[in-house]
Amino acid sequence: MIQRLSIIGVGLIGGSFARDLRALGLVDEIVGHGRSLGNLQLAVELGVIDRAVVKASDAVHDADMVLVAVPVGSIPQVLEEIAPALGDKTIVTDVGSVKQSVIEAARAALGDRFANFVPGHPIAGTENSGVGASLEGLFRDRQVILTPVPETDNAAAAQVNDLWQAVGAQVTLMDPAAHDRVLAASSHLPHMVAFTLMDQLVRMDEHREIFECSAGGLRDTTRIAGSDAAIWRDIALGNREMLLDLLRQYQFDIAELIGAIERGDAKWLLETFNRARRGREMLNKL
Amino acid sequence: MIQRLSIIGVGLIGGSFARDLRALGLVDEIVGHGRSLGNLQLAVELGVIDRAVVKASDAVHDADMVLVAVPVGSIPQVLEEIAPALGDKTIVTDVGSVKQSVIEAARAALGDRFANFVPGHPIAGTENSGVGASLEGLFRDRQVILTPVPETDNAAAAQVNDLWQAVGAQVTLMDPAAHDRVLAASSHLPHMVAFTLMDQLVRMDEHREIFECSAGGLRDTTRIAGSDAAIWRDIALGNREMLLDLLRQYQFDIAELIGAIERGDAKWLLETFNRARRGREMLNKL
Repeated sequence: MIQRLSIIGVGLIGGSFARDLRALGLVDEIVGHGRSLGNLQLAVELGVIDRAVVKASDAVHDADMVLVAVPVGSIPQVLEEIAPALGDKTIVTDVGSVKQSVIEAARAALGDRFANFVPGHPIAGTENSGVGASLEGLFRDRQVILTPVPETDNAAAAQVNDLWQAVGAQVTLMDPAAHDRVLAASSHLPHMVAFTLMDQLVRMDEHREIFECSAGGLRDTTRIAGSDAAIWRDIALGNREMLLDLLRQYQFDIAELIGAIERGDAKWLLETFNRARRGREMLNKL
Repeated sequence: MIQRLSIIGVGLIGGSFARDLRALGLVDEIVGHGRSLGNLQLAVELGVIDRAVVKASDAVHDADMVLVAVPVGSIPQVLEEIAPALGDKTIVTDVGSVKQSVIEAARAALGDRFANFVPGHPIAGTENSGVGASLEGLFRDRQVILTPVPETDNAAAAQVNDLWQAVGAQVTLMDPAAHDRVLAASSHLPHMVAFTLMDQLVRMDEHREIFECSAGGLRDTTRIAGSDAAIWRDIALGNREMLLDLLRQYQFDIAELIGAIERGDAKWLLETFNRARRGREMLNKL
């Protein structure tokens, strides 16, 4: 049972986590902080948080646990703001999609409280954002990856682990670098691909006609291009090296595809599309 | 009422068209032909066609209407095979995703019967293929684009139009070049993007781990990478110039994205992702 949970960034993820813990009766009081006062007000109206505070440091006062659920690029600043107000035993965890840069920032900001920081990443979400998009059960059967480092306190990691399991998630431990490499491929690259495709189409003069002549293919391929731009700017920069590696390979592969179409290489196209199709079948079976 | 409908290529599209016309009582007999005997046999067992014939020319004998539903690259050969067996009034239509190259092939193969050829393209389908994937109602509320040329017989076009409307589709007329340009953007480019992304991931050593750490984003973005490879090889080559224009622009945009991430250009990323997001919202509202 958590007496006081502090949520910094009451959006889709932070809000959904709060809703679940409340519904399960696992938390007494939820204090929220965020940049958008309108969003915070809505969070109170919806009963997602009990009260909203203007300063991040006030939100963590006397908290047993702090969930930092802001865009990755804002995590360093948030940690610096809350660091002086954290109690000795306050556990801090985050939900950032990038882990190495977040861990570095936490080490720098939290000093000797760094052991109470449990780096985490729930692989869940939708293309919608804000507390209005939050919902109960978002994490059910979803994966949550925790990336503790040698300094991380075991009891703190266990408590964060238990909360994610309580809301129905499957918790996996991973090395931070492995996490960033795998997620660059499974999530960050696909988002870049979807944003770039949709951006190209919407810049075309005939974009209305193109959208009108589209079917499920375009719709699915670009769904995640509706994701929050600030969140993805931060992820792209926060996981820069891993993502660049993959984007350069992708650029090379697109060039190869262009070459194959230019020279009318039916065999190359068939082989490549078939290999992709088999990959897709593997994904389907998971 | 059609006495005899001939379907060349009894797959997802051809099979679904047959199912609908049969369910509506609009056809007396459906004769099918295709390359895969196993698939044809299944089509008879499922009651999608009444009988299967080994030669395409036999399938069109005494037919009122012929639906050519084979991959775009096989259309020229099919048209050459059936041309001598076509009756004076037999209407021929196709479902190819590319129209200019198909029209050229039809003009060359059909001679003075070319007036009875009505180029068509139902914008419908799933990533599955074969008659086993065919279903009733596939075309309901979907768009079908007809691209008649000056020589096309009006009565033939009207009859094809009426059949598509009967199965619930919205029929639009378009210039063949405009069709190919718009579809290159709304469908062909997204397929290339999805195939390339999935092919890159499945070639990575950690592809299992990547798939296991994926969520709805990767799943949606690569759904159409499960599409039939031969069909898409043919479309890529059949609409080569239009598709290459878009792929070169896409390649340029990916290079721009890489540059922005390299120099840490947060402003460029936010603007680009936001423009994409607004495009996605436009698509959502259609």
